[in-house]
Amino acid sequence: MSVPVPGYIGPILPWLDLFGIAVFAATGAVAATMRGQTFVTAAFFALVTGVGGGTIRDLLMGAPVFWVHDRSVAAICITAALLIWLTPERWWHGKGFDWLDAMGLAAYAVFGAAKSLGYGVPPVPAFVMGVVTACVGGIIRDMMAGEPSILMRPELYVTAAALASALYVVLSFTGLPPFACGLVAAGAGFALRAAAIQWRLALPAYRGKR
Amino acid sequence: MSVPVPGYIGPILPWLDLFGIAVFAATGAVAATMRGQTFVTAAFFALVTGVGGGTIRDLLMGAPVFWVHDRSVAAICITAALLIWLTPERWWHGKGFDWLDAMGLAAYAVFGAAKSLGYGVPPVPAFVMGVVTACVGGIIRDMMAGEPSILMRPELYVTAAALASALYVVLSFTGLPPFACGLVAAGAGFALRAAAIQWRLALPAYRGKR
Amino acid sequence: MSVPVPGYIGPILPWLDLFGIAVFAATGAVAATMRGQTFVTAAFFALVTGVGGGTIRDLLMGAPVFWVHDRSVAAICITAALLIWLTPERWWHGKGFDWLDAMGLAAYAVFGAAKSLGYGVPPVPAFVMGVVTACVGGIIRDMMAGEPSILMRPELYVTAAALASALYVVLSFTGLPPFACGLVAAGAGFALRAAAIQWRLALPAYRGKR
Repeated sequence: MSVPVPGYIGPILPWLDLFGIAVFAATGAVAATMRGQTFVTAAFFALVTGVGGGTIRDLLMGAPVFWVHDRSVAAICITAALLIWLTPERWWHGKGFDWLDAMGLAAYAVFGAAKSLGYGVPPVPAFVMGVVTACVGGIIRDMMAGEPSILMRPELYVTAAALASALYVVLSFTGLPPFACGLVAAGAGFALRAAAIQWRLALPAYRGKR
Repeated sequence: MSVPVPGYIGPILPWLDLFGIAVFAATGAVAATMRGQTFVTAAFFALVTGVGGGTIRDLLMGAPVFWVHDRSVAAICITAALLIWLTPERWWHGKGFDWLDAMGLAAYAVFGAAKSLGYGVPPVPAFVMGVVTACVGGIIRDMMAGEPSILMRPELYVTAAALASALYVVLSFTGLPPFACGLVAAGAGFALRAAAIQWRLALPAYRGKR
Repeated sequence: MSVPVPGYIGPILPWLDLFGIAVFAATGAVAATMRGQTFVTAAFFALVTGVGGGTIRDLLMGAPVFWVHDRSVAAICITAALLIWLTPERWWHGKGFDWLDAMGLAAYAVFGAAKSLGYGVPPVPAFVMGVVTACVGGIIRDMMAGEPSILMRPELYVTAAALASALYVVLSFTGLPPFACGLVAAGAGFALRAAAIQWRLALPAYRGKR
């Protein structure tokens, strides 16, 4: 039985993290540009969406907020917004982008759960932290844009994050190396989300209305 | 003149807290199921509504966030969501549920004020913390659901929390035992909210529009 | 090259801060009264709008949240709400109030950037913190009121905060005394916002929709 400590999951963690940040920042910027917003708004959306989930995670754990004392994360988000802003909208539409987002979702869920376990958070809250890390950025983005959030759609989205996070927490108690746990968990979460995008899989809605 | 220190209010505090969490988690789950949402969404709403107010309170005070290092709170919220999800909607409708919510509101307002005073927060901000603890979970729930929040209704809701919190802060300076202060304050807050539910009491609206 | 340390910017900082708090608290109370809300709601809006941006800034930096251990800030916000509540709406309408808000915006952006640099936050995130401090209170106010937020309007608002914050960060590396940096930066931010109010200046919207 081994619980990873900070840094133990090794060199893949920071990259998962930066990948999640860049992808989510880009989805934030796209949300703003699709509404015909200005560059400043796009950059604000990119920042909030890119670092929102991880910020809440770090605050909840009592860890220093990762991007505040980092020289590059805020700059990465602003750069992602600039990139989106300077290119035509059709580049960022369609399923290709949904799949990038799916990869960000899976990576971020695993990263959130791993960082929390490493901080000594017990299994159930660590699982919750993985889901929060992956989903909260998008929820805040939707709330700021005045859109019904991903939370309110039957589409498998939060569920894919929950699968990745839960699987990572469970696997981390099997003695498997953290890298392998992360790969399996993120892969399963991504596969579920990809299946949801491809075949419009959805969870059953509440049927107690009778 | 005595200000309660952490733990001094005695064994009632953790129970007030768990009661508030379970009731608010249930209202979150009900908000999701009434919109025909999935179980995952109901569990997310239950968590955010159940622990939202207390989380903000702990972050503001600089205290460790209560549920993150606790093995059971997140599980209680998810269980409450499961319970709501598996039962017919009519069980959770009507005034019975409003009254449960009123008890949660009063309990949470007192608990928030007591915990803040115990952390050395001065009276006025401690009063604010009681109100925040009691109301913020429901406000976030309404914002996520895209509903006009309880804040925007003239109904006495925030006011009942304010009464309970203010009364606790004032009474705690009289030398009364904290348990008695808590009982009186929570009772008054609950009575005001119950009266508002029963007779649709409302505060006067702003009349400066002339 | 000199980076200001806490307190170094001198006696002007606390006053900039209190000024920003009072002005933003008043805008929050006005938002509530314009919707015909009750005094309790107006006070809640005043608090959240007045201390929201600074609260997020302090949480992100890991600093103690400024108003929680302060005897007067919460009281100032509640007093501002009372003042607005007891006076006719026409006093608080029109451009005079927009200009007060512009002064609050500029003061808060500079204060946020200065406090962050003083805490050892690197330049780019310190710039972001200035913008967050100035804008987040208003964004939360708009979200609670169910309004499209200032973020979504092409009007130069966030941009004025960004100018003040960026200018302060850049000037603080020139060796100029912090007081002078703050004056120049806040003046420039205020001037840009004032010009936007006067001549309805707006940033270009995204043109990739082709």
